[in-house]
Amino acid sequence: MEIKVIKNILDACEGQAQQIRDHLKEKHVLMVNLIGSPGSGKTTLLEKTLATLKGRFSIAVIEGDVATDKDAVRLQKYDIPIALINTDGACHLEPITIRKALDEFDLDRTDIIFVENVGNLVCPAEFDIGENCKIAISSATEGHDKPEKYPLLFNECRLVVLNKIDLIQFTDFDKDYYISSVKKLNGRVPVLEVSCRAEQGLEGWIDWLADSVSEVKKS
Amino acid sequence: MEIKVIKNILDACEGQAQQIRDHLKEKHVLMVNLIGSPGSGKTTLLEKTLATLKGRFSIAVIEGDVATDKDAVRLQKYDIPIALINTDGACHLEPITIRKALDEFDLDRTDIIFVENVGNLVCPAEFDIGENCKIAISSATEGHDKPEKYPLLFNECRLVVLNKIDLIQFTDFDKDYYISSVKKLNGRVPVLEVSCRAEQGLEGWIDWLADSVSEVKKS
Repeated sequence: MEIKVIKNILDACEGQAQQIRDHLKEKHVLMVNLIGSPGSGKTTLLEKTLATLKGRFSIAVIEGDVATDKDAVRLQKYDIPIALINTDGACHLEPITIRKALDEFDLDRTDIIFVENVGNLVCPAEFDIGENCKIAISSATEGHDKPEKYPLLFNECRLVVLNKIDLIQFTDFDKDYYISSVKKLNGRVPVLEVSCRAEQGLEGWIDWLADSVSEVKKS
Repeated sequence: MEIKVIKNILDACEGQAQQIRDHLKEKHVLMVNLIGSPGSGKTTLLEKTLATLKGRFSIAVIEGDVATDKDAVRLQKYDIPIALINTDGACHLEPITIRKALDEFDLDRTDIIFVENVGNLVCPAEFDIGENCKIAISSATEGHDKPEKYPLLFNECRLVVLNKIDLIQFTDFDKDYYISSVKKLNGRVPVLEVSCRAEQGLEGWIDWLADSVSEVKKS
């Protein structure tokens, strides 16, 4: 009986995620699900992205946080629609709350929705929220063994953003090892090397986003 | 009905955790539950601790990992009992697997058991595994907003280890802000400033462990 209950919940989640995906496709909106550890640089990546792309694309953000509105507040200065989901302790976002957040946006006038998931390398990777794709962000200061140790996200994502490369010189981080273990899990995934804080390597990220928006508009 | 099922599971967990705590108390064993983000430095802290304390205390380690035996392998050279729990995707350890792991150890000849929980700042803080206390480890490179954003762990822990202080000079980390937000959540908790890799500040950690072992032996 317990298994049945859990199965029902998972089935319901999957159904809702597919409805969200269909709806976003119809509206030609790109929704990316940004997943990484606490402090991997998700919010800083969004800050730099909004500063660069504002005016070029119409952007909205869904902020997932266990507690506080701190990340949402950091993004307020870019004057874009932001929906904050406080999970009140829960470790990931689910499609039911994403659907409610989407109701806050005018999808006919939106090109990109960034979902900043809860800071967590484990649970968010397990949940389909109807996104176009998952993006893994991990920082060099977390160590080069993270792809092997948390394989699901690196296996499922369509892009890896390796952040804080400006700090590599002060650590034992082995970049070749990191990239080769990503490739073992997910052969074709691009790995972008960036420092969000030092604004290094962000052109590749901006190009990737622009290409992805074009694809979604064509589909 | 769904609520009832979940309640049963939580009650069962609590009961098992209390049994573990009683058993460890009877055997005068200190078990600490080490919780932090992926890459916060849990395994490196254990490496330095084992190198320093081997011979002085009899130590065992329970390694919790989503996948791989990499952390357990890193500790093998210290020639201590290690039990590896692969959670196969699950985001935290639970008392049922801890109890099985404890069966692998000779508790009459053990002073300290370190449990390295799954790298995750959210879920492991919610589960009592029968430990003597939880310890939060967070690295300066994760940013000074982590205590506020992940309050449960910082509220519940008996000690905070702030790691990677040697990298603060290359980041925007605001140490006063970090410490003051820890104190707001948990007024009496000590914050130890260390760099495990650079072997800075570890004396305070070693002293804290030695004092904690003394307390457990007396009780």
